[in-house]
Amino acid sequence: MTTQELTEQIFKKKSFLCIGLDTDIDRIPTYLLSEKDPVFSFNKAIIDATHSYCVAYKPNIAFYEALGVSGWKALKKTIEYLHSEYPEIYTIADAKRGDIGNTSKMYAKAFFDDLGFDSITVAPYMGKDSVEPFLDFTNKHTILLALTSNEGAFDFQTKKIGDQELYKEVIKTSRTWNNSENLMYVVGATKAEYLREIRKIVPENFLLVPGVGAQGGSLEEVCKYGLTKNVGLLVNSSRKIIYASDSSNYAEIAAAMAESVQNQMADELAKL
Amino acid sequence: MTTQELTEQIFKKKSFLCIGLDTDIDRIPTYLLSEKDPVFSFNKAIIDATHSYCVAYKPNIAFYEALGVSGWKALKKTIEYLHSEYPEIYTIADAKRGDIGNTSKMYAKAFFDDLGFDSITVAPYMGKDSVEPFLDFTNKHTILLALTSNEGAFDFQTKKIGDQELYKEVIKTSRTWNNSENLMYVVGATKAEYLREIRKIVPENFLLVPGVGAQGGSLEEVCKYGLTKNVGLLVNSSRKIIYASDSSNYAEIAAAMAESVQNQMADELAKL
Repeated sequence: MTTQELTEQIFKKKSFLCIGLDTDIDRIPTYLLSEKDPVFSFNKAIIDATHSYCVAYKPNIAFYEALGVSGWKALKKTIEYLHSEYPEIYTIADAKRGDIGNTSKMYAKAFFDDLGFDSITVAPYMGKDSVEPFLDFTNKHTILLALTSNEGAFDFQTKKIGDQELYKEVIKTSRTWNNSENLMYVVGATKAEYLREIRKIVPENFLLVPGVGAQGGSLEEVCKYGLTKNVGLLVNSSRKIIYASDSSNYAEIAAAMAESVQNQMADELAKL
Repeated sequence: MTTQELTEQIFKKKSFLCIGLDTDIDRIPTYLLSEKDPVFSFNKAIIDATHSYCVAYKPNIAFYEALGVSGWKALKKTIEYLHSEYPEIYTIADAKRGDIGNTSKMYAKAFFDDLGFDSITVAPYMGKDSVEPFLDFTNKHTILLALTSNEGAFDFQTKKIGDQELYKEVIKTSRTWNNSENLMYVVGATKAEYLREIRKIVPENFLLVPGVGAQGGSLEEVCKYGLTKNVGLLVNSSRKIIYASDSSNYAEIAAAMAESVQNQMADELAKL
């Protein structure tokens, strides 16, 4: 999907919500465990109930890998279901990959070609030649970790290299890489005030903002500093939506939560 | 496996060679493609032929993920084969994972519990709470990226934070984390001269050193600066061994290459 198509979807649905599919076999309603593929059943119900309120889904790959072969199968079924039933939905593989060139190329192949995701999250520590193999793909986005939502972000990301923090160095440097127009950046909602600084470096690029919801970030703050006239934001919520209820009405309750976030987003978009 | 058990194996086999199983379906001998599981068949033959000359195998997870479900099956079969036939072998999941706490916990579960690897490579960008879930596991090692073998290592890793480079900051900071005795570090053989500096910070920890072989690093240089009296080194070679021949005698040729490296290692160990 192109950036323009994504933006069109956002204005059409009045939503820049991304729902994180951090589907944990130990947290889904127990009655699902008797199904053939409980993880896919859960995802399907969540997707069917919430797709009108969001523009993107973001499976968190760790939760699928933790189940081995069956998890990988559930992941593939989920992405195939999205492609066939809701082709207008943008998909993000939250994988945080990154390795030497020939290996990153393999990861890109896995997530862009084999699974057909529109985008993938990538870690910047190994530099240019670890990221460019992802950037090579046309109409795919590479979402580089810049300033993450967790406490550990302060260990290295906010440390100064010369006169600027590492996360700024990462963003600035990445703009010099081949096909850098395919870049988006991860910026945690728990650090919304940093968005002002980040927008000075990347006034246009999309930012994927996790941390609203269970991690405590504020949507209003994120919009205040992060929204651009072409939106430029995908705000993710995972646990607060998909685990809003553990009863048989979990999908319905998830939809109500998603709708509530979407309503706030519609208000923010109306201000543009 | 404990660090002590690994060291005992190294002295017993007179080898600190790790063989990287970067098994690429496009590079293995074409006649294997008619087998039911070509990737596992290739790995099995390589392992059977080379296990006397090495102490560890390191599947590069990207190469398996690129094949989807069948790749994950081949990975599982490979690790199960190692556990059942060669339980004295140390296993490394070259995965370069790292995410917020609850997600890193899932990755740890995937690689330590489900697949039963002895260790996993982890990226440090997201800091303490992204790494500690891996360190929680008893008798498992977390191999943190410090200074990688690729050109992109100079983009951020060697940039100075205050008066020291980022990779040193990463190593020093990681020593303050819970269960830091379970840490090893990735240091590229292509940057052997840096090992002198690194040994000042971590005189004892094991270092996993990729980049000897196809990437051009020198074993002699690595030993000169990196060897400790308890060895403290695992030197990896992937492509130069497993793709030494693309004929039906590939396993035999791989064994000859591995033996040649092992011979050099025996000489280095004799100097201790």
